Amino acid sequence: MDEPEGRRVPKIPDLRPCARSPVVDGLKIASQRQGGIVSRFDGDLELIDAYWRAANYLSVGQIYLRTNPLLREPLQAQHIKPRLLGHWGTSPGLNFCYAHLNRTIKARDLNMIYIMGPGHGGPAAVANAWLEGTYSEVYPEVSQDEAGLARLFRQFSSPGGIPSHVAPETPGSIHEGGELGYSLAHAYGAAFDNPDLVVACIVGDGEAETGPLATGWHGNKFLDPVGDGAVLPILHLNGYKIANPAVLARIPEDELIRLFEGYGYRPQLVSGDDPERMHREMAAALDQALDEIAEIQSMARDGRGHGRPRWPMIILRSPKGWTGPKEVEGLPVEGTWRAHQVPLAAVRENPAHLAQLEEWLRSYRPEELFDADGRPAGRLLALAPSGERRMSANPHANGGVLLRPLKLPDFTAYGVPVDKPGTTATEPTRRLGAFLRDVITANPDNFRIMGPDETASNRLGDVLEVTDRVFVGERYETDEHLGPRGRVLEVLSEHQCQGWLEGYLLTGRHGLFNSYEAFVHIVDSMFNQHAKWLKVTRHLPWRAPLASFNYLLSSHVWRQDHNGFTHQDPGFLDVVLNKKAEIVRVYLPPDANTLLSVGDHCLRSRDYVNVVVAGKQPALNWLAMDQAITHCTRGIGIWEWASTDGGGDPDVVMACAGDIPTLETLAATDLLRRLFPELRVRVVNVVDLMRLQPSDEHPHGLTDPEFDALFTPDKPVIFAFHGYPYLIHRLTYRRTGHHNLHVRGYIEEGTTTTPFDMVMMNDLDRFHLVMDVIDRVPSLGARVAHIRQRMADKRLELRAYTRQHGEDAPDISDWTWPH
Amino acid sequence: MDEPEGRRVPKIPDLRPCARSPVVDGLKIASQRQGGIVSRFDGDLELIDAYWRAANYLSVGQIYLRTNPLLREPLQAQHIKPRLLGHWGTSPGLNFCYAHLNRTIKARDLNMIYIMGPGHGGPAAVANAWLEGTYSEVYPEVSQDEAGLARLFRQFSSPGGIPSHVAPETPGSIHEGGELGYSLAHAYGAAFDNPDLVVACIVGDGEAETGPLATGWHGNKFLDPVGDGAVLPILHLNGYKIANPAVLARIPEDELIRLFEGYGYRPQLVSGDDPERMHREMAAALDQALDEIAEIQSMARDGRGHGRPRWPMIILRSPKGWTGPKEVEGLPVEGTWRAHQVPLAAVRENPAHLAQLEEWLRSYRPEELFDADGRPAGRLLALAPSGERRMSANPHANGGVLLRPLKLPDFTAYGVPVDKPGTTATEPTRRLGAFLRDVITANPDNFRIMGPDETASNRLGDVLEVTDRVFVGERYETDEHLGPRGRVLEVLSEHQCQGWLEGYLLTGRHGLFNSYEAFVHIVDSMFNQHAKWLKVTRHLPWRAPLASFNYLLSSHVWRQDHNGFTHQDPGFLDVVLNKKAEIVRVYLPPDANTLLSVGDHCLRSRDYVNVVVAGKQPALNWLAMDQAITHCTRGIGIWEWASTDGGGDPDVVMACAGDIPTLETLAATDLLRRLFPELRVRVVNVVDLMRLQPSDEHPHGLTDPEFDALFTPDKPVIFAFHGYPYLIHRLTYRRTGHHNLHVRGYIEEGTTTTPFDMVMMNDLDRFHLVMDVIDRVPSLGARVAHIRQRMADKRLELRAYTRQHGEDAPDISDWTWPH
Repeated sequence: MDEPEGRRVPKIPDLRPCARSPVVDGLKIASQRQGGIVSRFDGDLELIDAYWRAANYLSVGQIYLRTNPLLREPLQAQHIKPRLLGHWGTSPGLNFCYAHLNRTIKARDLNMIYIMGPGHGGPAAVANAWLEGTYSEVYPEVSQDEAGLARLFRQFSSPGGIPSHVAPETPGSIHEGGELGYSLAHAYGAAFDNPDLVVACIVGDGEAETGPLATGWHGNKFLDPVGDGAVLPILHLNGYKIANPAVLARIPEDELIRLFEGYGYRPQLVSGDDPERMHREMAAALDQALDEIAEIQSMARDGRGHGRPRWPMIILRSPKGWTGPKEVEGLPVEGTWRAHQVPLAAVRENPAHLAQLEEWLRSYRPEELFDADGRPAGRLLALAPSGERRMSANPHANGGVLLRPLKLPDFTAYGVPVDKPGTTATEPTRRLGAFLRDVITANPDNFRIMGPDETASNRLGDVLEVTDRVFVGERYETDEHLGPRGRVLEVLSEHQCQGWLEGYLLTGRHGLFNSYEAFVHIVDSMFNQHAKWLKVTRHLPWRAPLASFNYLLSSHVWRQDHNGFTHQDPGFLDVVLNKKAEIVRVYLPPDANTLLSVGDHCLRSRDYVNVVVAGKQPALNWLAMDQAITHCTRGIGIWEWASTDGGGDPDVVMACAGDIPTLETLAATDLLRRLFPELRVRVVNVVDLMRLQPSDEHPHGLTDPEFDALFTPDKPVIFAFHGYPYLIHRLTYRRTGHHNLHVRGYIEEGTTTTPFDMVMMNDLDRFHLVMDVIDRVPSLGARVAHIRQRMADKRLELRAYTRQHGEDAPDISDWTWPH
Repeated sequence: MDEPEGRRVPKIPDLRPCARSPVVDGLKIASQRQGGIVSRFDGDLELIDAYWRAANYLSVGQIYLRTNPLLREPLQAQHIKPRLLGHWGTSPGLNFCYAHLNRTIKARDLNMIYIMGPGHGGPAAVANAWLEGTYSEVYPEVSQDEAGLARLFRQFSSPGGIPSHVAPETPGSIHEGGELGYSLAHAYGAAFDNPDLVVACIVGDGEAETGPLATGWHGNKFLDPVGDGAVLPILHLNGYKIANPAVLARIPEDELIRLFEGYGYRPQLVSGDDPERMHREMAAALDQALDEIAEIQSMARDGRGHGRPRWPMIILRSPKGWTGPKEVEGLPVEGTWRAHQVPLAAVRENPAHLAQLEEWLRSYRPEELFDADGRPAGRLLALAPSGERRMSANPHANGGVLLRPLKLPDFTAYGVPVDKPGTTATEPTRRLGAFLRDVITANPDNFRIMGPDETASNRLGDVLEVTDRVFVGERYETDEHLGPRGRVLEVLSEHQCQGWLEGYLLTGRHGLFNSYEAFVHIVDSMFNQHAKWLKVTRHLPWRAPLASFNYLLSSHVWRQDHNGFTHQDPGFLDVVLNKKAEIVRVYLPPDANTLLSVGDHCLRSRDYVNVVVAGKQPALNWLAMDQAITHCTRGIGIWEWASTDGGGDPDVVMACAGDIPTLETLAATDLLRRLFPELRVRVVNVVDLMRLQPSDEHPHGLTDPEFDALFTPDKPVIFAFHGYPYLIHRLTYRRTGHHNLHVRGYIEEGTTTTPFDMVMMNDLDRFHLVMDVIDRVPSLGARVAHIRQRMADKRLELRAYTRQHGEDAPDISDWTWPH
């Protein structure tokens, strides 16, 4: 069969393994290339091209073929899948980079992983893992032979098979790429504290339009050339997203170069569609880039270089659907948006399409690429690295296997003594900060704290006694605790924080993301994707467990009276609870000691997303450390010291979850004692929100008898809740006494206020809770109307006080537990 | 009192109004400036400085002063607010830009609005609105005199007062800036189709680190110099976010310039801390930038220029907290992170702080700035533009006053005839696309469709018959429907789409954002902020109603079988329903005619966020147009033609919301008819999800008797729902029959499948719904076990079919309603 135009490659029959490239002056190579004098790659060219053809063949096969995987017989309609799914357009570019990186891995014995921003190129990821043998090691039924090849093709995007995108099921991947935008953040996260790792990161030109990716380039200001590894971004301009041109593919070349120089990189452009020339260019560009990385690292590590390096990057401009059909039915396909998904769509119905597909597949010359058994030809196997050097088998891409447990100091040592509940105040996160300081000291290279510049304002500042905030660039005398190496990464981008921490955890380390509660919604979708990733990996035995993703939401809704309505949103909890129960945990510790206990627990856990909501303002201490540990271990419990039901049957249950709701509930209980001394009140505090769910829905869920024992099956329950009140109803609607449950929470009525004015505005205040009790405990009798009105009057009076004085009345702000 | 070092300005006693600047060669001005020969602004300098001092004084006053607003008596502790809130750091820079822009507005008679990315600078926004008189016009109690001034200071960030951030309450604002990142997207959205408008947009260097802002700069590739207005970005580098340096403030100047050249702008740098020099530099830079804008627009509009213009931008580098305390207790403040919020924190307690505050306030020389009545001095008033030229009073910043209702064609003309329900199939969004095409034709300059490159794939492609997708830059022959001017904006950034549409709506126009359901979570936080904005404006009588924000989620969860788990997430509805009932609406039209009816309704509505979830795949048509209109007007209703309860008491209610749930419910009803001919089944379909809520919680909510009449108080209800099942429970938990409600929905069990395999995996399929009926209608008697097992077997058989054939069995995919 004739070779199609434009992709002829020189045929060099015998191939020597490529010698280790000498470290040469990058600029010299560049000038040689401009003069066209690049010859030293000739030896590899045909092999790289053959490898590329093999990966392309396998990519097309996955999209189209049900049977006849090696085209041993002429292609017929019945060999074709009934539903044609998957994305061809990005795949040849991904395969091109993969083949070239493989050469450099072997030549330089590199420790490299491959992040595929264009995650739609699932066929490419799977093709390369299969070529390298990893796929068959992980999934033995997909063997490296003809039967395995048939299975490989058939399973792709088929019922009971594998997803069409790069996914947790894909060996070598830490990045799904279904939702676009996070490849660079994942790449930098993976590189932190991995000084020997090179993270090759393919950025699609569609993805490059997203916000998270556009700021992702600034990761280079946070990468320490001494203690961290390298990220090698390869921006792949293939011109189109779905139906539209991609922005960066349509700006003039000088703008493009300036943009990436402005981002602080040294870009090299590899551009064209002639495979032979492109192989030469790409090989030269990669050698130059890897030389530059080696030089940067060696200078920094020898103490010869200071300041922020100008890291290399590559801009690869190649046709979308490169090597695919040039035209279909008279319309251009290769190099256009028509190549995005399935270029030939009617293959089963249209014999011309079928013939064109066969021509396309045979253009890769499968007979040269696979042996008689359907195994990749030996010379292809020779290009692939071996063992853990294969990008598909690199342990960093299955980080759990590298995970070292944190060395944790005894958290009880950071606790506050509580002789009498509710009489002393502490900033809970400040205690946690002291604990985290010593976690950092004990774990200097595998624990990081991320946040949008709130570590100090969240009262975790003690950590800065032992580490710096990372900034690789110009520093001034007035800067404090700022340096190129540290455990705290602060950037005003929740996307960067989230993406970095994901990349860090996925490569086997530990960490914490602290943020404003309202603004953590910025990463709702990233949380969703990470939770989905964890959910799938849970059922993949070869993926080792990871450290949990820990959120600490300290500037929470009830302390945003001064910042106002925009800063008030507790709805992240609702988003979190939509995900599978086996993955998510939500903790609402009400004071310092409970926060320490919860924090310690979260840092030890695996494969969860833990969300901890805890205050940073001084708050009353309720539980001594031993009580706190017991309470947090149970996750929910009766506070007997605050209850007046004598361990027997209460008249009303006052439940609470969250620090401010707990404060108001206790203050309401105090009022109730004085107003209705005979009323039997039970106080129930919830730290672990999942305890409220039925036991068949969440592993932490209480059984119905347990729930009824706490909340009673028939007594009114006044539940003061940190978040939107619906959430409690959603968790408890199946419980026996649910119709007795009355929830107070945040109801979106915020405006500028004082702290107590804010709880009043949302009817969560102590006086309103007392009114709720009055409304729901009819046994209180005739005095009720009188007292109820007193409560309502008190609220008006307090509101007037704040209006007049600009702050809360002292009897509110100074209240302590008097019993 | 001595003037502090470094902010001396020349005192020129008399001021002439500034002449209209001649349009001159921008480069010439730049070279003059480099040579220091800029003299033509001398006349304005002192006035601009005085104006700036006045705004700064008012900003500091808002943060600190309770009384004594004009410092008529020596400052004492009792004049100080008890809680010191607000952000000083960014305010002087915002004031500086505002004063300079005011000069240019007057000089050039510009139609300009001001977007304050650093929304924390609320004091600055309020100060300028008050100086211009707008504040007192909108809020007469805050008059332009000493009493008003006292009120202005006192209300700021105080109980019952105004927020500390720029907010809906702030005249002249369309941008809240509580959550950072969206200023440029709002600016471009405001400029679209406003050819005479200049949008000055201050971007903070903190905000500039966010992803949405980092990609926001690319708005210039979508701005048509002919039909759109101009955006003038002013990147304000004041060096710090909260406690950390800002990235862009710490990169070398050549990188900074290259970055913005790479983004396609022509940057000018204005840098320093000496007010006199800075005034000259800023005035010259603004004149140059505005000259360039005028020249770009004039060339493009005269047909002299083609291609994408290189729009100007300004980089303003000035000290954080400029003109504030240089040092406090020996530590540097001005120009450091310590100036971020309240530089002198202990003013009431510490006499030295008090004295320093007084010195600071008096350094602005209030006695020169305000007359005896506390009114701004006449010469200040002379700098401010008048009437609607004031940025605080520009009608574009209160877009509802400019809103023209859409001219809407009769949507019924686009409907599909339905003689017999459930027998013909249509792609619903394709019909909507035809309607939208004619909406565009009838409204060529005030309606836009935004999306991340999914307009065609969402089957709205008919709109491209009459308009282009916007791209201002290089175009190729193979591009289709791409041009500098059009109604469709597509960019692979949900943040850009959302932000642009917000800016467009807030300035009084109409639009639609179409997106993948799963990935719309990317803008959860932006939705939250917009909903909060609308909630607040609802209660501000001077803010005129806006067109609603319309989401069309077409690639929804149940059609993402092929794209897999990452593409499956219906949780945006949960996020939406956390917001105030008066703002949010959710519609789930089950077919083409209902989608048209809902679409028409949404485009006519005001001040809502409408979320419409509708399929793009061929789906059975259930309702003829007249039935569709009635059904959508009710929002919920019994489908009598599908029911077998004869209008009487049913044995079971089959409820459904969403296209796929409706299909499966009808198919289950078909099965029930055949399996249990005597069973009285009622089918209830929900289009308007808010109908389920209690009437006291949502204006659309059914009363309890209405709800009971539809769902019965005591019969089992099997509810097939589009989203997470919890959402239905959350909406209905107070209803009489809630304990009989059994919901099937999405439960996060996705993997690669076929469409029917996906509904089976989530137990939402017709056979499972029949099993649910069997489990919940005990009257079905002894045959039950047998039939139940047949249903379960059928599911296994169908799953096996998909595994073998790679597609759904024909009796599933070809099913139609046979009755």
